[in-house]
Amino acid sequence: MTAVDIKALASLARPASRVLAQSSRNTRDAALCAAAMSLRRDYEAILSANARDLDASEASAAFRDRLTLTEARIEAMATGLEAVAALDDPVGRLLAEWTRPNGLRLRRVATPIGVIGMIYESRPNVGADAAGLCLKSGNAVILRGGSESLHSARAIHAAMVDGLRQAALPEACVQIAPDADRAHVAAMLAAAGAIDLIIPRGGKSLVERVQREARVPVLAHAEGLCHTYVDGHAEPEMARTIVANAKMRRTGICGATETLLIDAACAEALLPPIIADLAALGCDFRADAAARAILPELPAADMADFHTEWLDAVLSVAVVDGVEGALAHIARFGSAHTEAIVTEDAATAHRFLSGTDSAVTMWNASTQFCDGAEFGFGAEIGVATGRLHARGPVGLEQLTCFRTEVIGQGQTRP
Amino acid sequence: MTAVDIKALASLARPASRVLAQSSRNTRDAALCAAAMSLRRDYEAILSANARDLDASEASAAFRDRLTLTEARIEAMATGLEAVAALDDPVGRLLAEWTRPNGLRLRRVATPIGVIGMIYESRPNVGADAAGLCLKSGNAVILRGGSESLHSARAIHAAMVDGLRQAALPEACVQIAPDADRAHVAAMLAAAGAIDLIIPRGGKSLVERVQREARVPVLAHAEGLCHTYVDGHAEPEMARTIVANAKMRRTGICGATETLLIDAACAEALLPPIIADLAALGCDFRADAAARAILPELPAADMADFHTEWLDAVLSVAVVDGVEGALAHIARFGSAHTEAIVTEDAATAHRFLSGTDSAVTMWNASTQFCDGAEFGFGAEIGVATGRLHARGPVGLEQLTCFRTEVIGQGQTRP
Repeated sequence: MTAVDIKALASLARPASRVLAQSSRNTRDAALCAAAMSLRRDYEAILSANARDLDASEASAAFRDRLTLTEARIEAMATGLEAVAALDDPVGRLLAEWTRPNGLRLRRVATPIGVIGMIYESRPNVGADAAGLCLKSGNAVILRGGSESLHSARAIHAAMVDGLRQAALPEACVQIAPDADRAHVAAMLAAAGAIDLIIPRGGKSLVERVQREARVPVLAHAEGLCHTYVDGHAEPEMARTIVANAKMRRTGICGATETLLIDAACAEALLPPIIADLAALGCDFRADAAARAILPELPAADMADFHTEWLDAVLSVAVVDGVEGALAHIARFGSAHTEAIVTEDAATAHRFLSGTDSAVTMWNASTQFCDGAEFGFGAEIGVATGRLHARGPVGLEQLTCFRTEVIGQGQTRP
Repeated sequence: MTAVDIKALASLARPASRVLAQSSRNTRDAALCAAAMSLRRDYEAILSANARDLDASEASAAFRDRLTLTEARIEAMATGLEAVAALDDPVGRLLAEWTRPNGLRLRRVATPIGVIGMIYESRPNVGADAAGLCLKSGNAVILRGGSESLHSARAIHAAMVDGLRQAALPEACVQIAPDADRAHVAAMLAAAGAIDLIIPRGGKSLVERVQREARVPVLAHAEGLCHTYVDGHAEPEMARTIVANAKMRRTGICGATETLLIDAACAEALLPPIIADLAALGCDFRADAAARAILPELPAADMADFHTEWLDAVLSVAVVDGVEGALAHIARFGSAHTEAIVTEDAATAHRFLSGTDSAVTMWNASTQFCDGAEFGFGAEIGVATGRLHARGPVGLEQLTCFRTEVIGQGQTRP
């Protein structure tokens, strides 16, 4: 029953994706701007749908906060769609062009991926953001938000469809799972050939389930266990500022630093002020023996702590033996997301930048910069830590693939 | 038991892949050239291993031909490895570079993918070719050739390992499934997290099994149901030459044309000479009613014929209503591999080039050009028709992904 529902959506999505792939930039932008206007026009209906979700929810305050829409949050969604409309068109970009000795001209051209399945938790704004990025990049999308946000998601979806209609694009370009049945997720994950890419966005357990069960390619990260390594050649003030920001600016985002690695060469001098800065900001610690030899008041870490993405005001701390020690620690405990080094030594920095398996490596910058907007992508639909297609923030460019056009003058192959 | 074997290989492959990713171009090229010399030096041992495989095989003559090694074929493998060594280094290429208003400099740099699983049928040379491309692109590889070619594959693997040893690279950079147990394939397909990418090469049933069962990303094509469309504005002589080449140059390759689509506007004039050319080359036909109205002697096609990748001297023929008719036929029956148009009309050509879902589209050229070497990639490890990461011939560039390096001067995120 449920699999059939999703199959029915997917069978509408494929032809819609083909129309969308052939549509002009202006048409897609018009749909985005019209959807933004519909969100604004229908904000009362959206708020009352949201109130129904909130009334039915018995979740925690933090969960309810993510679920809650306000007029300002609806305006932010609308502004977001307009901002995406204003970005460069990712479709049709000429990625490479070359000519063969036989005169064949080859052109690699960016194309939409096709049909994207977006699985997210009960944050209604994610539906609008994701639909906007998929539409801009010429991809049809099937949205499946958290079951607690169903009425909100439907109301937002209605605004997106209204935008599509006004731009004379197929309504099936943006679809939504028909009800809160949890089996829709399984059906989407099984839809090989009908859905081309699944993007899950939410907590680790959701993402890990998707990665484990999907029969469809997935772009995602389950964890952001990010490290900041303070090298012996770090400028001390910069190290203090970067570590404080990387850990404490926002503790709940995937680019937040979870483990501080500090070079034994400077730990005695630099660890105390860094820890004092963080403690003053309300941070707690789990420190290895070498760090506790310098600061005995720090709580002791066990191995599990270095495997933990705290997403909270807690920092694992280890003293390492130079950049090689840092890289060995990251290879053992990292999640291939983002790692930073603070150093004035360029050779050490370059060793670090290219020495990890991670999607993003940084030199003298806060790991919290790992974000599509900060990278200049305008917006992101997620962050990927896989090893194929896209790594790091996933923006419009990463929502495209390519085809090769071969232009001849009658050539045949000898 | 078997899963453990493959897990053991994979657990050696990961650290080896890290060493390889950090190695210099010169080191990897030295390993390739040393392996080529080992193939030449040990050709008698390789031939006698191959003789054991052939003695045990009761397969068809065509199968035995693919399995058979000769001194010339071993020399071709060696030359192939040297040619790959001479190609540009795909690792470390600067793919993009930009600076943000806050001064952060971002660099997108090509990286190896990691650990690749290569599953292929009993053509021993595929093992050497694939290992060479993986090694050049900094990827560790686990080879699993057809069980009938086990001794040949082992002998070739020994030469690859000898090359690695001479270049002081870990022997685990190129590994081979330990025996002919068919369960190794299942274990490789299940090795999510341990193997980063599976590339299957062989017949449709092998590839479809891999696509169906793999828990690991796959780059492959199950079918090359390629179309050539002769437009009403085609230059007649060019159309005849291209169709004859696209169908008959080699009928067994994935880029061979399987279906001729001809514009109703020119079918009466052009179909007879095109068919006569092909018939003279030994081609058979399956034609739709409109084509048979022009040439009643052509055998009638049924719908299944248009879904068939003949890989033989057989051509499906349909008369279509202009370029839109051709695109509709391709959307219904195509395999997203390669399609060609023959026309002198540029607007029609551009409509066709961007109007399909296919990985490669061609204008006034033979579909048989869909090949890594013909594209200028030097060599290919396969052809992909998926919609993520790579589409069309898969060469060294498609065996890399990227990381982003972020270079700051102490920036923190506001």
